[in-house]
Amino acid sequence: MASKFFSTAPRAVQTRLCRTPNSVSIASRLPQRRYISAYGYEQAKALTFSEYGEPPSVLSLHSHSISPPHSNFMTLRFLASPINPADINQIQGVYPSKPTFTTNLGTANPIAVAGNEGVAEIIALGEGVKKEGFKKGDWVFMKGPGFGTWRTHASATTDDVVKLDDQMREGISAIQAGTVSINPCTAYRMLRDFTTLQEGEWFIQNGANSGVGRAAIQLGKKWGYKSINVIRSRDDKVKEEAMKKELKELGADVVITDAELQSQGIKDMAKEWTNGGRAPIRLALNCVNGKAATAMAKLLSSSSHFVTYGAMSKQPLTIPASMFIFKDIHFHGFWVSRWAEKHPGEKQMTVADVLDMTRKGEFRDMPVDEIRWEWESKGDELIAKVKDTLEGYREGKGVFVFGKT
Amino acid sequence: MASKFFSTAPRAVQTRLCRTPNSVSIASRLPQRRYISAYGYEQAKALTFSEYGEPPSVLSLHSHSISPPHSNFMTLRFLASPINPADINQIQGVYPSKPTFTTNLGTANPIAVAGNEGVAEIIALGEGVKKEGFKKGDWVFMKGPGFGTWRTHASATTDDVVKLDDQMREGISAIQAGTVSINPCTAYRMLRDFTTLQEGEWFIQNGANSGVGRAAIQLGKKWGYKSINVIRSRDDKVKEEAMKKELKELGADVVITDAELQSQGIKDMAKEWTNGGRAPIRLALNCVNGKAATAMAKLLSSSSHFVTYGAMSKQPLTIPASMFIFKDIHFHGFWVSRWAEKHPGEKQMTVADVLDMTRKGEFRDMPVDEIRWEWESKGDELIAKVKDTLEGYREGKGVFVFGKT
Repeated sequence: MASKFFSTAPRAVQTRLCRTPNSVSIASRLPQRRYISAYGYEQAKALTFSEYGEPPSVLSLHSHSISPPHSNFMTLRFLASPINPADINQIQGVYPSKPTFTTNLGTANPIAVAGNEGVAEIIALGEGVKKEGFKKGDWVFMKGPGFGTWRTHASATTDDVVKLDDQMREGISAIQAGTVSINPCTAYRMLRDFTTLQEGEWFIQNGANSGVGRAAIQLGKKWGYKSINVIRSRDDKVKEEAMKKELKELGADVVITDAELQSQGIKDMAKEWTNGGRAPIRLALNCVNGKAATAMAKLLSSSSHFVTYGAMSKQPLTIPASMFIFKDIHFHGFWVSRWAEKHPGEKQMTVADVLDMTRKGEFRDMPVDEIRWEWESKGDELIAKVKDTLEGYREGKGVFVFGKT
Repeated sequence: MASKFFSTAPRAVQTRLCRTPNSVSIASRLPQRRYISAYGYEQAKALTFSEYGEPPSVLSLHSHSISPPHSNFMTLRFLASPINPADINQIQGVYPSKPTFTTNLGTANPIAVAGNEGVAEIIALGEGVKKEGFKKGDWVFMKGPGFGTWRTHASATTDDVVKLDDQMREGISAIQAGTVSINPCTAYRMLRDFTTLQEGEWFIQNGANSGVGRAAIQLGKKWGYKSINVIRSRDDKVKEEAMKKELKELGADVVITDAELQSQGIKDMAKEWTNGGRAPIRLALNCVNGKAATAMAKLLSSSSHFVTYGAMSKQPLTIPASMFIFKDIHFHGFWVSRWAEKHPGEKQMTVADVLDMTRKGEFRDMPVDEIRWEWESKGDELIAKVKDTLEGYREGKGVFVFGKT
């Protein structure tokens, strides 16, 4: 498995799939399609599950066919679909957004397709879809969670998808388009929607080398905010230093380990960074929870905001009363799916803004661990890759990248 | 010591000190003053401390004299000063608002006067104070914390005090005026400032029989909000039932014990009370913390607000990530001192509104445990009463009520 870090690589290397200077010719440069039925029936494969459980136990690769699209139906061929932690939680049955269980894929008992984020091309469409301005070769991503994106092909309606218009798509790779909806949007809205940071003011975040963390570093930098970034301590100090250096190159002002965060002298250090507290730390972004998150909250200035969007430690957040009453810290949560559902217009604008920055070279992808999914790929191989994500920290974000399907 | 519950008593019984239909004649009905020096020097006694510690160990009754007021100084005689939990914490040195340590009371080493809330009458005043519209006999309370109210007399300037004007004072007892600044204001602002409850919507609170709790029940009732009120379980079930009945008579819709809150069937019960969830529970007020507070948060509707103003259990608050991320509950704190400092105008209006409701019989005092403080009262006796408050739950709020001083 090729494992590559793209965040510090030059832009030409970052964008590998389907990248063209002119979007009109993109379709012709896509990897060739495996097979087109003479009658318009499409063969499809999908990672599905019929009951909740640990992904290696409950997932299987299911083959089915899709009938030719008519009226407001279209047939999609997926290009890139990431493996997000929420996808795993959804399969485990512990995610509040449930997938659609259906017998439409030709099974006696209902099954659901895993995955929630991804980008696909339209390979066939009914008349109704054409009337709404869609055409063959257009790229779309999912409007909300629960559609199922770990699949080669799908039948969808215009209600299921958002079109990436030609202008937005220019200079954007499938991996970039397929991973923009969740992590960069999460970072973007958390930096903007809970408080109005002024230029020169600070935010602090943990999980700083995650997709959201890297996006926050870059967006914060662009908007003039300063950042304290917490990463896990590593036994391999050379790797730890390399990670610090990498995040600083992305735009991080300060990078510390969780051990450093929880050490004695941290308050004095924070004072030094923030010019004696004159440039306040007014926002915290938390995807870890547990003691390390409480330690982060302690560095906030009075009347600041603390936003939780994950709990990698699987611990709750414990907050002393004084932090509420006397320090007036406000604690919130952020869930990009709910936000997108409530604010579809803002989501479009946020995605467009991030893709625009990407196009200009101002926003680097997070490191991606590509999982090639060819037509011949075996279910066991694909599921083993999901298991890798489940069990530890990959070297980069796992993304199914579809080859000749 | 007379221990009385006034909240359910008729209004005529509730208001015992200095209550007159016409404020002009109030001064003449005040308890007689002990002594007026021929030269205008006032003898004073105060509960003071020179170092932080447990109140019984560090408090002492200190006698001193106050010189005749000139320019912008006035001499105050206290009428009623409550013992609030924050006062205890301040003496212990664990409260962020510190008292003023001074040698102005005639000691070699600096001492501070305990207590933060109270009402006093002006017994002498300089020309500068008169020019600002104050007169002998006017009632004032403290503008902010830290002045020291557990004292018979004090020298103050107009910056230290807020005048209770004649209209506001009409029909109001000294105990009512001396206890309006903290508990009723806390309840009032928490119900108003974190979310806009609609009529028929619910809030939930613990410590419901506290001063703040009783104020919230009554204010909520007046404004059309419904309330779920949590009280401590008691071994004496007759007393427990009496407490439930008493709070319902105040306006509580539902009263449950913390054991009932943490029992299996609570979610179903809450559904029943709230008409299947159609009338949402959108606000929680917490002065307990610990598991019982987390259990309360679990009953909130999505996107609700949870406000902490105390931690009687001395436990922190532990919040699972899902409550932030998926239920979108926002957690805040409230500290009436900070609020009052930031919003002095709003504080005046809030106090005026509560006193107006009190005058109309729409707002009942909380049960008060009067501690008489006469000129002859011994320091040991007064300190023993403070110790009572420290050690357990009094039958009513401890308030120093000054007799012939």
